[in-house]
Amino acid sequence: MSTLDKLLVGIVGGSGYTGVELLRLLAYHPSVMVTAVTSRAQQGQRLSDCFPSLRGVYDLDFCAPSLEVLGGCDVVFFATPSGTAMTLAPDLIERGVKVVDLSADFRLEDVAVWEHWYGQPHACPQLLNEAVYGLPEVNREATRKARLVANPGCYPTAVQLGFLPLLEAGVIDSQNLIADAKSGVSGAGRKESLATQLCEAGENMKAYGASGHRHLPEIEQGLQRATNGTIGLTFVPHLTPMIRGIHATLYARLKSDPERSDPDIQALFESRFAGEPFVDVLPAASHPETRSVRGSNVCRLSWHRPQGGDTVVVLAVEDNLVKGAAGQAIQNMNIMMGIDEVAGLHHAASMP
Amino acid sequence: MSTLDKLLVGIVGGSGYTGVELLRLLAYHPSVMVTAVTSRAQQGQRLSDCFPSLRGVYDLDFCAPSLEVLGGCDVVFFATPSGTAMTLAPDLIERGVKVVDLSADFRLEDVAVWEHWYGQPHACPQLLNEAVYGLPEVNREATRKARLVANPGCYPTAVQLGFLPLLEAGVIDSQNLIADAKSGVSGAGRKESLATQLCEAGENMKAYGASGHRHLPEIEQGLQRATNGTIGLTFVPHLTPMIRGIHATLYARLKSDPERSDPDIQALFESRFAGEPFVDVLPAASHPETRSVRGSNVCRLSWHRPQGGDTVVVLAVEDNLVKGAAGQAIQNMNIMMGIDEVAGLHHAASMP
Amino acid sequence: MSTLDKLLVGIVGGSGYTGVELLRLLAYHPSVMVTAVTSRAQQGQRLSDCFPSLRGVYDLDFCAPSLEVLGGCDVVFFATPSGTAMTLAPDLIERGVKVVDLSADFRLEDVAVWEHWYGQPHACPQLLNEAVYGLPEVNREATRKARLVANPGCYPTAVQLGFLPLLEAGVIDSQNLIADAKSGVSGAGRKESLATQLCEAGENMKAYGASGHRHLPEIEQGLQRATNGTIGLTFVPHLTPMIRGIHATLYARLKSDPERSDPDIQALFESRFAGEPFVDVLPAASHPETRSVRGSNVCRLSWHRPQGGDTVVVLAVEDNLVKGAAGQAIQNMNIMMGIDEVAGLHHAASMP
Amino acid sequence: MSTLDKLLVGIVGGSGYTGVELLRLLAYHPSVMVTAVTSRAQQGQRLSDCFPSLRGVYDLDFCAPSLEVLGGCDVVFFATPSGTAMTLAPDLIERGVKVVDLSADFRLEDVAVWEHWYGQPHACPQLLNEAVYGLPEVNREATRKARLVANPGCYPTAVQLGFLPLLEAGVIDSQNLIADAKSGVSGAGRKESLATQLCEAGENMKAYGASGHRHLPEIEQGLQRATNGTIGLTFVPHLTPMIRGIHATLYARLKSDPERSDPDIQALFESRFAGEPFVDVLPAASHPETRSVRGSNVCRLSWHRPQGGDTVVVLAVEDNLVKGAAGQAIQNMNIMMGIDEVAGLHHAASMP
Repeated sequence: MSTLDKLLVGIVGGSGYTGVELLRLLAYHPSVMVTAVTSRAQQGQRLSDCFPSLRGVYDLDFCAPSLEVLGGCDVVFFATPSGTAMTLAPDLIERGVKVVDLSADFRLEDVAVWEHWYGQPHACPQLLNEAVYGLPEVNREATRKARLVANPGCYPTAVQLGFLPLLEAGVIDSQNLIADAKSGVSGAGRKESLATQLCEAGENMKAYGASGHRHLPEIEQGLQRATNGTIGLTFVPHLTPMIRGIHATLYARLKSDPERSDPDIQALFESRFAGEPFVDVLPAASHPETRSVRGSNVCRLSWHRPQGGDTVVVLAVEDNLVKGAAGQAIQNMNIMMGIDEVAGLHHAASMP
Repeated sequence: MSTLDKLLVGIVGGSGYTGVELLRLLAYHPSVMVTAVTSRAQQGQRLSDCFPSLRGVYDLDFCAPSLEVLGGCDVVFFATPSGTAMTLAPDLIERGVKVVDLSADFRLEDVAVWEHWYGQPHACPQLLNEAVYGLPEVNREATRKARLVANPGCYPTAVQLGFLPLLEAGVIDSQNLIADAKSGVSGAGRKESLATQLCEAGENMKAYGASGHRHLPEIEQGLQRATNGTIGLTFVPHLTPMIRGIHATLYARLKSDPERSDPDIQALFESRFAGEPFVDVLPAASHPETRSVRGSNVCRLSWHRPQGGDTVVVLAVEDNLVKGAAGQAIQNMNIMMGIDEVAGLHHAASMP
Repeated sequence: MSTLDKLLVGIVGGSGYTGVELLRLLAYHPSVMVTAVTSRAQQGQRLSDCFPSLRGVYDLDFCAPSLEVLGGCDVVFFATPSGTAMTLAPDLIERGVKVVDLSADFRLEDVAVWEHWYGQPHACPQLLNEAVYGLPEVNREATRKARLVANPGCYPTAVQLGFLPLLEAGVIDSQNLIADAKSGVSGAGRKESLATQLCEAGENMKAYGASGHRHLPEIEQGLQRATNGTIGLTFVPHLTPMIRGIHATLYARLKSDPERSDPDIQALFESRFAGEPFVDVLPAASHPETRSVRGSNVCRLSWHRPQGGDTVVVLAVEDNLVKGAAGQAIQNMNIMMGIDEVAGLHHAASMP
Repeated sequence: MSTLDKLLVGIVGGSGYTGVELLRLLAYHPSVMVTAVTSRAQQGQRLSDCFPSLRGVYDLDFCAPSLEVLGGCDVVFFATPSGTAMTLAPDLIERGVKVVDLSADFRLEDVAVWEHWYGQPHACPQLLNEAVYGLPEVNREATRKARLVANPGCYPTAVQLGFLPLLEAGVIDSQNLIADAKSGVSGAGRKESLATQLCEAGENMKAYGASGHRHLPEIEQGLQRATNGTIGLTFVPHLTPMIRGIHATLYARLKSDPERSDPDIQALFESRFAGEPFVDVLPAASHPETRSVRGSNVCRLSWHRPQGGDTVVVLAVEDNLVKGAAGQAIQNMNIMMGIDEVAGLHHAASMP
């Protein structure tokens, strides 16, 4: 570790919701000291003027992102829109700085797919293969040795955790998966926009991106790796009038196999996530609520077989800003840096 | 019509949300005078003391439900929990009073199914066959001659309207339908309960009844009538932190037919609902919002074929208290009584 | 009236919240046909593409504001930010078009005060004296003959209606008035802004403009007219996490007068607003709720004397977009045009 | 300290919102082990079945309140409705257990006043004088030696902290204080009730208890102690559609004193709260937001002098469940037990 036995941490793009959530969670992390928070827009302003919730917690100003400042860190988080990390990360990695990228820049291994969905050329394709996709429940060992972690998207985290036990066990038809996901508005980021005004998004439900959303290829890639084959997925995200939380409702068909007895789905889930510090499998027939994980790094899961039929319904909830973003990023940092994986992530959910 | 050329209308169970919504909508209906509103709990109290929103609008007290009072009405609406209409409706019908039942008492034609889902013996099975299931887009003609209309449930209205064009045209696999529905909290009714407290249901999403919900057999019955066969449906309702609105997201598989070209889904929807005053088909690839129908009797629909594949996604929104309850009940009354079907239902949605 | 016995109505600035609320309320006004809706930003777009809630209600496109189009109207509403009406209204008035301005351009008679608070030179000071301040409960007679009505602000409507009975009767100390007002977020208008994002304004309360808000001089002017003297007012507005509604809590000290018995405050309120179609005085010691007027043109009032002391607390609620904006504007139009004052304003509040 | 160097802590009434908030905050308190959580209603149920947010955090069942169980604790918190602590606390205190009562049982020193407002005889008047009113910013020293702390109410905490600097400095007229307070719905507790349903309290603002609220005598007592004299206070609480948070807007008149220059109000506030770990004075003319303290134990304050006049407006925000209840109770426990006052209370507010 660095001086004072604390890891020196930088955050690029600290003025958005994942940035301020990183700051909230890292404030009392026992092994971390945040030394640099960048924001081009807020440069020179005190953190606590932008976020009064941090008054008395941080004594820092936003600074410009520069190799000088960031290069002195042990770990740098990118909490930026697509397109930033891929230009800055290579130099940092070369200097020995570990990088956790919360944006989508390094999540897809196929550069053509990335360029199709993100509508721009990729500035750093050479790192796409090295980057470890940071779903700890899948890639914990690779993450330990990683220089660059691509932190999963909010929807992909919940959808993958919900489908993985069934896909890996081979008990469902992988060609006909449906993920109906509902997100709080903070998933859209902290920016001036009409659609996410309280008067537009409040007291309202709507689907969006039903014909195609950027998280689709990311989920597909993850599920394909789990099955070593192609999968067929329909993914429909919805905007729901709350601030935090994702509720994924997943539908799959059990394979019919006259030679085999019905799978014990509860056992599949429990054994798949045994020992996982941040995945909680509820008793059968439960209905997890998003508020049960508000502010915490837990993904909570349950499943149903309505009317005892062939359709399995999986319900998965997470806080999109924690397990779906900043919390998982810190979990990945802990793994990368050899710290206790749960350090700084002890937060009982805030209820009510 | 009755004296003064106004229909005399009674409402049984006027202190709940569907009751007060009937009162709101009927207040300025050109052909109606509400003469009796019953509530055992509020009996003797002024309507406007219970609902200050009705001060200056109604000069009535809640009364006890009695044949004397209700028998003098031309039409009686039941806005009661399950089990009330089936005991009172027969006598009213015998006296020539038309009945629109917003509860579930007469929605299912199979008494055994009803008794299974509602957990009590049915008090009036002899009227189950006579009762017209009041989805005007399906049963308008039968409703014109009906003495008793079973007003559809909120979820069943949206789900059936969304699936009908595809099922009737025979273009989807009827054995593998999925309805993922999200409702505002008013769907749970106006009662003291913990789960629907603002501090419990606010800032929260959850599924409920995933293993079986009372609206499932109602939807199945409607869809089976449309297909003249069995259907396979998975229905998962969700509670979403808003007051009004239902958003149904429906998933179906297109039948593959190498001999036939792809169906023109937009045309199917538009022709199915041509001339319907309260169903609005959006342009292809739209995303309807629940607030676009808040307070109005419209069900708004659109559809998607993600990535051009075999899965069709239908999005349907309605106000659960209007097209999903009180508005549709008035639409049915208008049809039964030979009034202009849209009378009293001109309400541009309230936005924002 | 114009052709077809309908007033031809234009709306300048139809893409904001007061614009769309005018459209909602005028849609079924019996004596009105909306013929022109302008919006520079949305010019050429269909109304219903911008506001799906108006699909099937209006068959119009947004157009550019021009004398040609607006000059053909009988009445033009300005639902624009400050600074627009004062440049367009004079030409319209000259052509005989009646104008109701929902912006602040003509609300203050003192041009210097206006220019101080609105930070720009006034383009049309010559009409400031002619413009009638459109609080019908004060200026109904003047409005009948007006060519130009300055429609009151949302806060000023509630605060003035709450204080007027006490000030006009001379029973309170006019030098020490306090108005603590809470508004739904729609009062901030329909625009891209950070502070009114659901994630910023939801689950949150804050005061704003405590040191000075543009509605202060408007309220002061109105209250001074009522007292024929100066008044001392502290006005603190608050943003509250709901879409619609204003709740004004007003504090005043009763004058002590040993020679006079205590005033009958309930009688003062009831007699002051006797016959007013849109002011509702509740029984003593009531607590009006904003939702009791949601979507309706009513201002609902009550008062308290805590512990029987010298402080009177007045509680006033209104829908900021209706009695606080579009509804009152239509009420003013009705008065100006000699129509029934309540035409088109029959709306029972939407509850829940 | 007790075994394992941890304080053994009991919570009476653990199934309400202040109870579960104590559990959230104590979960990772470095010097505490919660050993007993009582609830008559939930007796025998697992904590985590009632509160899934606590799954994996506590391995406890609710038990019945008994001297046997609670008598073994070092500290017992009462998170009960009025009337419970006064019957159980005396025996616990006699056994040497320290008690922090979050209910109102020991907040008022005048038993007649207590009995008037709480409508029942007081079961333990002999402890009223001994009980220390636990506002640490006033009674820190007395709390160090206390056996029984009466934890302040949520409104009283914010209102007293806002008025104290001005009253203690003698710069305002103490006979004419106004406290207009807005609370999130969790202040009403976790219980089945109609008024706090999402459909009743959502999208709604209302005052309540304007003629008299139980927190009035508590605030009066605190302010009178600060001034050594009588005070005149009007207190109007409001219900606001959010879960957590109190915003108090306080109004007072500066004493006019021609011999003295204007007081430096900012300096008064800053010096009064210098060194206080949980009171944060904002720069002059700021507007604190309730979300800036959500989940944290901070009370954040600012002040205004509108138009430079004689009225001072103080704005105070807190989380009603933290600084207004459970957080302050833990702060008091820390003080009583000689632990670091801020132990277990390091929580950056959750934003958004």
